[in-house]
Amino acid sequence: MAAAGNSDLMQKIVSLCKRRGFVFQSSEIYGGLRSAYDYGPMGVELKRNLMSEWWRAMVHSREDIVGLDASIIMHPAVWRASGHLAGFSDPLVDCQMCGERFRADKAPRAEQGADTPITLGDKGRAKAALTRAQEQFDIPLTRKKNVLHGAKGNDRGYVCPNCGSPFLSEERQFNLMFRTSLGPVDPIGDIIAAVKQATEDGESEAELRRRVDKAVGESAVYLRPETAQGMFVQFLNIQQSMAMKVPFGIAQMGKSFRNEVTVEHFIFRSCEFEQMECEYFIRPGEGPKALEEWKAERMRWWQSIGLKPENLRMRAHEPDELAHYSDGCVDVEYKFPWGWDELEGIASRTNYDLNAHATASGKKLTYYDQDMVDPETGKKGWRYIPHVIEPAAGATRGVLAALCDAYDEEPGDETGKGARTVLRLHPRLSPVKAAILPLVRKDGMPEVARKVAKQFFAAGINAKYDEQHAIGRRYARHDEIGTPYCLTVDTQTMSDETVTIRYRDDRRQERIKIAEAVDVVTRALSQ
Amino acid sequence: MAAAGNSDLMQKIVSLCKRRGFVFQSSEIYGGLRSAYDYGPMGVELKRNLMSEWWRAMVHSREDIVGLDASIIMHPAVWRASGHLAGFSDPLVDCQMCGERFRADKAPRAEQGADTPITLGDKGRAKAALTRAQEQFDIPLTRKKNVLHGAKGNDRGYVCPNCGSPFLSEERQFNLMFRTSLGPVDPIGDIIAAVKQATEDGESEAELRRRVDKAVGESAVYLRPETAQGMFVQFLNIQQSMAMKVPFGIAQMGKSFRNEVTVEHFIFRSCEFEQMECEYFIRPGEGPKALEEWKAERMRWWQSIGLKPENLRMRAHEPDELAHYSDGCVDVEYKFPWGWDELEGIASRTNYDLNAHATASGKKLTYYDQDMVDPETGKKGWRYIPHVIEPAAGATRGVLAALCDAYDEEPGDETGKGARTVLRLHPRLSPVKAAILPLVRKDGMPEVARKVAKQFFAAGINAKYDEQHAIGRRYARHDEIGTPYCLTVDTQTMSDETVTIRYRDDRRQERIKIAEAVDVVTRALSQ
Repeated sequence: MAAAGNSDLMQKIVSLCKRRGFVFQSSEIYGGLRSAYDYGPMGVELKRNLMSEWWRAMVHSREDIVGLDASIIMHPAVWRASGHLAGFSDPLVDCQMCGERFRADKAPRAEQGADTPITLGDKGRAKAALTRAQEQFDIPLTRKKNVLHGAKGNDRGYVCPNCGSPFLSEERQFNLMFRTSLGPVDPIGDIIAAVKQATEDGESEAELRRRVDKAVGESAVYLRPETAQGMFVQFLNIQQSMAMKVPFGIAQMGKSFRNEVTVEHFIFRSCEFEQMECEYFIRPGEGPKALEEWKAERMRWWQSIGLKPENLRMRAHEPDELAHYSDGCVDVEYKFPWGWDELEGIASRTNYDLNAHATASGKKLTYYDQDMVDPETGKKGWRYIPHVIEPAAGATRGVLAALCDAYDEEPGDETGKGARTVLRLHPRLSPVKAAILPLVRKDGMPEVARKVAKQFFAAGINAKYDEQHAIGRRYARHDEIGTPYCLTVDTQTMSDETVTIRYRDDRRQERIKIAEAVDVVTRALSQ
Repeated sequence: MAAAGNSDLMQKIVSLCKRRGFVFQSSEIYGGLRSAYDYGPMGVELKRNLMSEWWRAMVHSREDIVGLDASIIMHPAVWRASGHLAGFSDPLVDCQMCGERFRADKAPRAEQGADTPITLGDKGRAKAALTRAQEQFDIPLTRKKNVLHGAKGNDRGYVCPNCGSPFLSEERQFNLMFRTSLGPVDPIGDIIAAVKQATEDGESEAELRRRVDKAVGESAVYLRPETAQGMFVQFLNIQQSMAMKVPFGIAQMGKSFRNEVTVEHFIFRSCEFEQMECEYFIRPGEGPKALEEWKAERMRWWQSIGLKPENLRMRAHEPDELAHYSDGCVDVEYKFPWGWDELEGIASRTNYDLNAHATASGKKLTYYDQDMVDPETGKKGWRYIPHVIEPAAGATRGVLAALCDAYDEEPGDETGKGARTVLRLHPRLSPVKAAILPLVRKDGMPEVARKVAKQFFAAGINAKYDEQHAIGRRYARHDEIGTPYCLTVDTQTMSDETVTIRYRDDRRQERIKIAEAVDVVTRALSQ
């Protein structure tokens, strides 16, 4: 796509996603749910294909990595040990002019002393805000239509993203984990009782809140905000049951949940999303070398599923971006329509996580390395807490990147004839691998086409029989969902057992024998 | 297994699951989480295989069913319309003797007037309970060691499952949905404010609770207790984007969550589990016929993945078990070690669900059937709310059934030699399809074995290279995880390019050419 087209490219993709059954807004008939998406018939296939490719590359094709599927609701102690309960939060601020609640770290910057005009929705709101500013903050502003003038940036350094106001509440930390309650208790009842009792006892606000938090905490559990902790917590069970030798990895795919304040860019940042994460355990000291290997491997993989090399890049984290325990981190970034953004993070995390869980659980999360010399004793046999490299990719982000990368519009000739939209997905990602099309719905063609489709089913290849509308409209539909091969059964088929195969990318057509059809497609898929 | 072995069969399966990396307790290093399980390296493969088989049968091999992957957190209006908010609850009771909280409908029965001895944990507890019974209920009991005598069954008809006491709290309805809070608000703060305000205003308990519920409700969302509603809510989007014609179905697999009070039988009933559900939309009046077809189809499928026919049966629901709107429901039951229990429910649900969502959302969830005559007007073209058949299977239950069905112990000869445990899984379900084993770790055998393994990777078949321990121990390990084929590279391989193939079920061995290995296994898998 030309750069000029980028501004509305996202809109076109969102529209195609709904029109062709890739992605719908969740609960759309009820007005939709903020930041949750449903994957329709084509989307679920695309996502499954992408995630299967990852699994194949990470687990099935390697001796040294095994899989895991841990529960979404884990013991709350996991999140205490991992630091998520204390630290996994966004700084939230309320605007005192328009009431907007927003993330301080994502707000527009405004230098101290700079003019910061405040733009309200209409004149009435502006008038009310003017009165409020004068009464509550004793600040003289002037109003022109729906804009208030005279406010200045303060030492906070940012303003409200909605109205531009610098009059803001204190920042407070908002934990991104979804909390719920496990077990046959009603925490609401306990909370009410705690508030009443504390009020009766004449306790301070702080003590009241402490008692409430205790009532909540007794049954509180959390939806995992990342899949990674499952691998650390099951490190020993997996190492022992599978007799794994360091270096080895544990890979997991699945849903994670973050109560994001700012959701953006369609499925890029949503509250419910899917991850593909691996914890690769290594010997102490081998982090930097292993990080380089994983960088190369992961870049290779993203290209192997068809993303264009020029749309992918590595960005090393600056030292001040690194967590205190990390000795290196890079992001794989994709050139999304709105700019470069993160697709995967690859972090060298030392032994921080295993160490934290060992301390919190009292279990020894160590590995006895027969092949190594203990640097302290100088003897063979070294027991250590493995270090870890974590390639953590976004599966739903991967789906969006695949869609953006594949989306193309061909203008056709001067009159617009032959114009089309086509999803140039890698055939292994395509929801439908082969469309089996009877030219017309008679003369025995549907029966033959269905027989061809059955051959694909038997081979485990997702083919779709499709007889609705004229053949041109069917080609157009399959171009839009990225079907790489259309096989058409026509009059000639009836006499010579051949079909037309049409190639999505260049619309080239040729005839092949029915008996070869599955092989032709299989070969193309294994490339 | 002989009937005598059934009592400890479950224990053996649980033990094998942990030892061989199928299923671990969630967060085990933290003492485990009640009723959540993690699927280890072998379990995740088994579960993926089972669910892929379902997807292949339901979606890929059929023209009339398409897939969906809806979000776990849906709009709360969905659960209001579906009836889950009001009615999806268990009757909970607290025992006033031992404090146990339990489900009234699962408690042991005790007739009115029957003797109900109360057995406490120890003498001290029994003494305390005796005092409590006398003081609080003015009931004279006698104590012998840790048992209280003299209590009688009352009109409730059941007693505490823990201590046998008939002294119980009122039953109260406990909703099984997990509730959480979406958006940048802290509902706890709002709840505290509501309680304080209501107390200050001198409001009644009922009004206080109403205000609290309002504060909670403003951001409340729920984890889906079933995947089914996603299909109803997206009915129109899918029907239109995919141009589906009735009869057609929507299929979905994924996690669901129920805050079960009683969890039991390992992964059979847990709070977090996976489902495989289909909503198959049909013309009004065609329910009974379609139900029969689905009964046959689903029974065929469970057998196709290897479950023994004698361990499967259909159980039709009694009229008093049916929901008021349902005109027929059967369960596919499996003979688990503890008895026959539900694997899948197949329900004819009329147009109840689409109708409920149409009413609640104000959207027309109808279908225009060009091929049918409207029974009211007598003209061609009939607009109606489709009826639905719902085959709803438990994926995690399927995994357990597959494990129970496949588990076998062979006694060996009189001395016990040759005894083994073997999982006779259908090869398509087996976590590892082929083990590639160098006889010894030298003489170039590992290199050749790795080359063989690569051929399987390239063919997309999950093979595992395995060189640890003596060959006998490796065979035993692969018998226990259900690997159908072991390919051993030995001295002869080096001269004639053949390997030994060992068949899991009868331990038969024969030599095949390396070049044929992938084909031999592929053929076996497609049977």
